[in-house]
Parts: sequence; C-alpha cells; structure tokens
Amino acid sequence: AIVIVPAKAVEAAIADCCTKGVRFVVVEAAGFAETGVEGRETQERILKIIRDHSCRVLGPNCSGVINTHHNMVQSIGLLSDLRKGNVGMVAQAGVYAAGILTGLSNVLDFGIVATIGNKMDINETDILEYLSDDDHISVIVMYMEDIRSGKRFVDVATRAAVRKPVIVLKSGRTEAGKKAVSSHTASLAGNDEVNSAAFRQSGVIRARDNEHLFALTRAFSKQPVPKGNGVLVITYTGSLGVAATDMLYLSDMRLAALEPYFQKRLKNALPDYASVGNPIDCSFSMTPEQVKNLIEIGVESGDVNSFIVVIQGEILGSFVEVMKNIDYKGKPVVCVVACKEFMIDDVVKMEQAGFPVYSTAEMAAEVLGQMYHYGVRRQSAMTDSIARHLTKDAFSVDNNPVRLRLINPKDIGLWTDFVNGCSQKSLWLRFLSPFSATPERAERFCNLNPEEEVAVVAEMKVGDQYKFLGIARLIKNKHCAGEAEYAIIISDPWQNRSLGITLSKQCIELAKKEGYRTIRAETIQ
Amino acid sequence: AIVIVPAKAVEAAIADCCTKGVRFVVVEAAGFAETGVEGRETQERILKIIRDHSCRVLGPNCSGVINTHHNMVQSIGLLSDLRKGNVGMVAQAGVYAAGILTGLSNVLDFGIVATIGNKMDINETDILEYLSDDDHISVIVMYMEDIRSGKRFVDVATRAAVRKPVIVLKSGRTEAGKKAVSSHTASLAGNDEVNSAAFRQSGVIRARDNEHLFALTRAFSKQPVPKGNGVLVITYTGSLGVAATDMLYLSDMRLAALEPYFQKRLKNALPDYASVGNPIDCSFSMTPEQVKNLIEIGVESGDVNSFIVVIQGEILGSFVEVMKNIDYKGKPVVCVVACKEFMIDDVVKMEQAGFPVYSTAEMAAEVLGQMYHYGVRRQSAMTDSIARHLTKDAFSVDNNPVRLRLINPKDIGLWTDFVNGCSQKSLWLRFLSPFSATPERAERFCNLNPEEEVAVVAEMKVGDQYKFLGIARLIKNKHCAGEAEYAIIISDPWQNRSLGITLSKQCIELAKKEGYRTIRAETIQ
Repeated sequence: AIVIVPAKAVEAAIADCCTKGVRFVVVEAAGFAETGVEGRETQERILKIIRDHSCRVLGPNCSGVINTHHNMVQSIGLLSDLRKGNVGMVAQAGVYAAGILTGLSNVLDFGIVATIGNKMDINETDILEYLSDDDHISVIVMYMEDIRSGKRFVDVATRAAVRKPVIVLKSGRTEAGKKAVSSHTASLAGNDEVNSAAFRQSGVIRARDNEHLFALTRAFSKQPVPKGNGVLVITYTGSLGVAATDMLYLSDMRLAALEPYFQKRLKNALPDYASVGNPIDCSFSMTPEQVKNLIEIGVESGDVNSFIVVIQGEILGSFVEVMKNIDYKGKPVVCVVACKEFMIDDVVKMEQAGFPVYSTAEMAAEVLGQMYHYGVRRQSAMTDSIARHLTKDAFSVDNNPVRLRLINPKDIGLWTDFVNGCSQKSLWLRFLSPFSATPERAERFCNLNPEEEVAVVAEMKVGDQYKFLGIARLIKNKHCAGEAEYAIIISDPWQNRSLGITLSKQCIELAKKEGYRTIRAETIQ
Repeated sequence: AIVIVPAKAVEAAIADCCTKGVRFVVVEAAGFAETGVEGRETQERILKIIRDHSCRVLGPNCSGVINTHHNMVQSIGLLSDLRKGNVGMVAQAGVYAAGILTGLSNVLDFGIVATIGNKMDINETDILEYLSDDDHISVIVMYMEDIRSGKRFVDVATRAAVRKPVIVLKSGRTEAGKKAVSSHTASLAGNDEVNSAAFRQSGVIRARDNEHLFALTRAFSKQPVPKGNGVLVITYTGSLGVAATDMLYLSDMRLAALEPYFQKRLKNALPDYASVGNPIDCSFSMTPEQVKNLIEIGVESGDVNSFIVVIQGEILGSFVEVMKNIDYKGKPVVCVVACKEFMIDDVVKMEQAGFPVYSTAEMAAEVLGQMYHYGVRRQSAMTDSIARHLTKDAFSVDNNPVRLRLINPKDIGLWTDFVNGCSQKSLWLRFLSPFSATPERAERFCNLNPEEEVAVVAEMKVGDQYKFLGIARLIKNKHCAGEAEYAIIISDPWQNRSLGITLSKQCIELAKKEGYRTIRAETIQ
C-alpha cells in the first residue's frame, strides 16, 4: 500500500493496512522524527505495529520507489517519461531525487530510484542489497546523509561492489553539516572518517558532490571499464590536452605510448601542422572523420586502453552519428566539451548515443582513472573470492603432497615449463591442435579476467621450487549465463594417478559455488 | 599591425613593419618555437629585429587581443556579439579562448581577452600589468601553461591582487603535463610547487580547472565580496542545504546565527511545515516571493553577510524578475540549481541579471568562501601597503617621542580612553555635534575598510602603555574618484603644540601616495 495522508492519519492507516494483511507499505508523508520528540514517538509506535504484523515500511518522509522495468512510479514529484535503464539509485529524500531526475533523465537511464526518507524500517542497506541482485541494474548510486548499521552496510556493500560499481555521495561531513542532517531526516550522520574508512574497505567509490557523482555514473552506465591505464587523448586545443594529461597522471593513469607503427599511421591520418604525439592535437580543423580514423588506428594499439576526445562545442552535433559507427573493440571513450551547457541539445544526443560528455578535461581523466582502478580492485576481489572457494588442504597423489590454487600472472615461467614438459599427444588432446609455449600464449593463459575465465593449477614442491602437475580451466560462456566450458591437462607422468579426477571434482565444486549450472567438456580418446 | 601570413613569411613582414616604424605587431601564425629548432631560431631572429627597432610583438601562435570597450577584435575564431564587461582575461592559446568564449559570453561579460601564444616578446606579466591598471577591468583571469620571469610576475601580481581579484588556472602540473605544454607552445612549465608558492605569496587565487575558474570569475564579476563569513542558506531541499553547510565549514565559512528577532520574522514568512533554522528549508513549495521575503529579512541581520539560494530548476525562470528587485544592501547572493545545464535558458537570464548560478551547493559555498578570504587578504594587504607609506620615524613634540600608525580593530580600548579624555568642545569641533564613546562607535571607528577610510593615530608611550594624542582620518568620497574628506582631532593638552600640523602633513603625504588629488576638510573656529 502507498500511504499519502497527513502525518496525523498515518498511524491509523498503517494499523488498517496491517489488519488487512498488507505486507509492504510506503509512507510519503513528512512530519515525523525529523520534527522532534512527538514525531519520533509516533514512529516508534508505528514500528511496533508493523513488527507485530511482519509488515515492512519504506519512509516516512520519502517519495517511494520508481522501477522503470516494472513501469512503477510512486513518486509525488512531477516526472517526464523515463527510459528503462541500468542505473539503480538510493536517494535519501524525495525532493532531491525529483529535482535531479528532471534534468538527469535526459542523459542517464534509471532502472530503479528508491527514496528512503526517515528509513524507520527499510534502510539504504536493504535497498543496496536488492539493487546488487537485480540483473537490470549495472551501476548503483547512493545519496546518503547517514548510514544505519555500519557493519551490515560494509558486508552488503563489499559483496555488491564485486558485482557492480557502487558510487556514494555522503553528506553531513562536518559538525554543522551533521546538525543540518538531523533537522532534515532525523538522522545521525556519524563520524566522517569512519564512513570514509567503511567506503574504502568495501570498495565503494566516494563522490565529492553531485557533479562528480553523476559524472562517474554516466561513465559506468554507458562505457566498459578500461582494461589498462594507457589513454589516447585526441583534442582540438593543446590547452585541454595538457589539462587531460595532468589529471591522468594525478589519477595514476598515463598517456598510451604509441608504437612507431601506430605513430606513422596516425601521422598519415592528420594534416601536416597537427601534432602527432599523445595528446594528438588536431587543431581547430578537427573533423569527425579525422577523429574516427584516429580512434580506429588507436583501438588496434595494445597500449591504448581508453580514449579521451576533446571536441569543439560548435561542431559537436556532427560527431554523433560518426562516433556511433566506430568499433571500439571494448575500449571506453569519454568526451570533453568546454562549456557544454551551451550546447546542451547536442550533448544530450551524444549522451543518448552512449558517450559521456564532460565540461572539463580534468573530470574526463579523473573518471577514466576511477573506472580503471575500480576494475583492478574488482578483479582482485573476485579472484580472492574464488580462491576462498578452493580447498586449502593439500592432498596426496601417490604419497606426494599436492596443492591446488588459482593461476596468476606471475606463473608465466611455471606455465611455460609445464607446457614444454607435456607430450605432443597430451597437448593435442587438450587444445585439439598442435600447441607450444610462446610468450604471448603464456601471458594469455596466466593473466586472466576472473569474470571470464578461471584456471586452477595442481602443484607440487620439488626441492625448494614448485612445479605444475596439471591445469584445469573454467571458461564462462558469454552467450549463455550460468554455463561454462571445462578443459583439463595433466602432465604425462601424472596421468592415470587420480590427480585428474581430484582436480576435476574440485573444479566442479568451485563452479557450483560460483553459480554455474551447466559445465561442458569435450574429450577425444 | 596584425600579421596573418604563413609562418615562413612572418620574418619579412615584421622587418617591413619595423622599417615603416610600426611600434606594435600581433603575429597570429603558428609554426615557430613550438615546432622545433628551426622555428625557435626564426623567433630569435625576429626578436633581434624588433629589439633593434623598439617594436613590441604579441605572439606568434596566438589570436591577438579583444577589447570590447574599444570595439576591437583581432581574434581569428568565430565569435558572436560580445557585451562590454569587467572581466580581463589572459589566455595562452587562441583556440582555447575562442572555444570557451562561444559559450561563456552568454553568462560573462569580458572587457579584454588577450591571447599570448608563444609570448616571444610580450608575456602574461605584461598583460596582467595592463589589466590591473585598466579601470574597465575589475576581475583578472589567467589561463597559463608557464610563467616567464617568475620574480616580476610575483611583483606585478602582488600589486594587481590588492586592486582586483586575480584568478589563475595553471596547467603543466605533472611531468607529463609539462611535456605536453612544451609541444603546445614551446614553454617550460617549471616546478608546480614553486608556482603554487608564487601564487600564494602574491595573493593570486588558483583555480583547479575551467569550471572552477569561471565559477569564481562569475561571482567576482557580478557580486560584491562578502564583508563577513556568516551565510544564510535558503533551499527547497534539505539535502542540498546539508551539502552547502558541509562545504561552507570546509571553506572556513559558517552558517549565520540568526538572532531570535530574525528567527521570529522568518518563521512568520514561512508555512508551518518549513524548517526555520539555517539552512532554511522551504520545501517543494518554495516561491520567488517567499525567497524575496526571506532575503529582505536576512539582509537586516548583522550576522548575515551573504546568501546561498538553492532553486528548483523547473521554476527558475519565475525567480529572475523577483530576485532583481531586492535591495541586497551590498551583500552578495549566489544561486544553486542542480543539473542547471538542462535549464540553460533560465540560467542565462539569471546570470545576465547578475546572479551566478552553480550546479552544486558545494561550488556555491566554496566560491563564497574564496571571495570572503580574498576580501580579508586584500584589506590586510591594502592596510600594509598604506602603512608602508607612513613615516616609520618617531618624532618629538615638546621632547616627547610620538609615533604615527594606522588605527586597527585592537585599538577599541585606546580609542575609547582617547574620546573620554577629550573636552566636549574638541569633540564638537571634530564631529559638529555632541559625541561620546559607545561600543558600537568604537567598533565603527577602529575597524575600517581601507578601501573606504584610513585613520592615522599619533601615540605616545606612557609607562609601559601607549596613549592616543590625536587621530586623523581620510574618508574616500564614493561619488568622486580621487577625492577624500579629511578630519582631525587632537586631545586637549596636546593642541597648539605642532602635533596637529605634523599629523596633517603626514596625512596629506599619505593621501598623495594613495593617489588622491583633492582633499577636503571643514573646520569651524
């Protein structure tokens, strides 16, 4: 039930709902704990009623929930049409949410917006948990004035942040700010350093203000996370190229180093007077086609993991269709348009085409840096979490102690020795074609994205060094959720000695814990 | 002369200009020191030619100068009509300047925009010096990639910053950024910490990016500097009130403390459910008339020195006329509109009406803080500079050593003793009416804004304490530049003993050094 009655009538209305067996109630009225002792007491009484009837309440002093995927709008604010999107948002207050949605819905597509108000019962952590499980949502945004139950928040946020980025704007940072919070939603803002530590610990990204919050959200919502920290900057003015460069390095990112081959190709794609370095300064004659050429050359370079494109506002409109028709090969691109607010129509077109547009080169560079570092943290958190599912115990094969663990980028030497020690027959059975160890393959097989592939090695200590006895891989099927391909290879002297069976059993166990329902393996005998 | 010919033809063109006796040349062509050794050598040769002929050159690799007050536009960029304004800007590069002017000219009125490019001869410090002397200019903005002749910059900037705010965006902060700078305009960006120290020392405000740069510029260009750090925040959403509060305190500002009388008046001006504290939360029903009432009550309170008004974007347009018709009594007001870019037409109307509009409450609060602290620094720098014009030497009156200095807020006790020690006749002659010392008057007469009034005291040591013998004042005539009123009072026992003449001579000397041409004094005998 949605209860929109004056504050005084709310208690009776909720009691009625409970009697009728209503399980979920949204209370939008204000005038409770945020107004003083009396309001707080009313909230206490309501809480007792709902607890007695196992009823859950959102609010009071909120604007309910919007779920575009379910075509549900409980908000009291006036809203234009919302497109279905992948952003899930927790907002403390309804007026705030309505205010920003009016504008933001032009450039950001929300799946769920939940306002929590005084959060008498359901709080930000409950919503966060829901958002992290909802497959429609791939970015979570939270505006909060306080955090209830800090320990549970850290647990839930840690798990959520491994799945999808969680970006938080938390106000009430100063003593005066906390006082303002308490008169706004009767919340206690708590110690800001403790909050900061909690965010860091759980891998949550903290934004400094609304601009930064939605700058991050637009990027995460529309673009993939960069797989490396090398950036190619394409600009029409050297000044903003310098600004981007500064902020990249201040954000622990770097300018991609262009191999001579790519330098030459880029030079051919530019007029004589343009500066072919990185940043590439196309000067005032920059055209969409030029930028397309440069990007298409850039995506081929192994050191270019993302792009910043600085576009002149006056000609922004001409970039939209051209930019849409580039194959970025999974590499993110963000745009900079100085004074973008004066070209807002074209900015909206670019944003709707999937390209975040920022007013400053600094913001673009900072956002790319935060995306990259989020990706690194997430991979490491996922790997840790998968590793925890593996047995810690060593087991014996023919009385030799053998240990299982995940492969990692430092294993290139061990992997190469292992492949070199396998017979051609074993390699053929595993790869279904002739196979030998090369540096590129070693890199490819040891440096894995845990979202896509996991490899478990069985290793034994020989003298003071370890040696691989076998490797098993689970490769996620991109086209079918919950399905993985399985492959295994055991070094020749250890075949038919129970190692293969033990390793496979462990991998099937691991796959179950990781949520796979089907595992496919091909074998040739 | 303005030279717009290909780089190769520039040297000959300048030689021709020099032969013809042309004294000032603007070179817009690129292709000089920024391209390598050959270009650098050409610049050296041109420099020799112009030095031999006492000719000055702006550029190369620039877009010349725009001076709206002289109806002069040398820019090669396309520009819409520019209004005459009070902002003077030094921009390194023409493309950058043209790019931002297109948008910014909607909300910011420039007097002068000078692009300096490779600054072979005329550099940023020369332009800064000119801007600080130009009476059309009241705010100076600089975008720079390097600083030539750091010592002279500090000298010129220190003097400029006492007259008007100087706001600087300096890129090339990192090693990679410096490298990008050198390929852009052949400049050496230097050590960023040294630059930061130079800015701090000279009282220049350093912006972190373009957004921040023009956020500050719009405020300084349109609003007076707050005279104290108490702020009244009026908002339609508690959330943004909290954000403003946090950033005020992080900026060494504070929420104004509302006296009970004003609290009561504010309560009467608001509906029951609105929260009358500071921030004042008008909630979603906020109207322009309500805000007008609140501001008109606020300006009367001694503790309110400035306003932040957070307005809902959808109804922003209805605020323009109402906000224009409020008497702010010299107290600045800045506005916040979340996601303002989507209401840009109304934002432009507000800006053109003189109200800076920011996307975030944080930016509004930070800008007010930077304005206030600039005002404090300027007052103290002005006082120091005036004090330096006073003789440091003690002189004798009847063999008693007497010292001259400026009065300051710590002198309330000495001032009160002095007034209490004067005869009614002396006081009458000075104030032309009965006069006695009250705490309010002591505050008013000791705590002076050096832009408006200066008081010189003659004091003598009696035991281990000082005692005032006389006070002379120079009060600037607001309606007539270069004119001041003069008044003097000498304590009765020290009258007719040459002190009055010595003090007056010193004050006239001081007034001359401060640039006053006329001093008026009324005396009754």
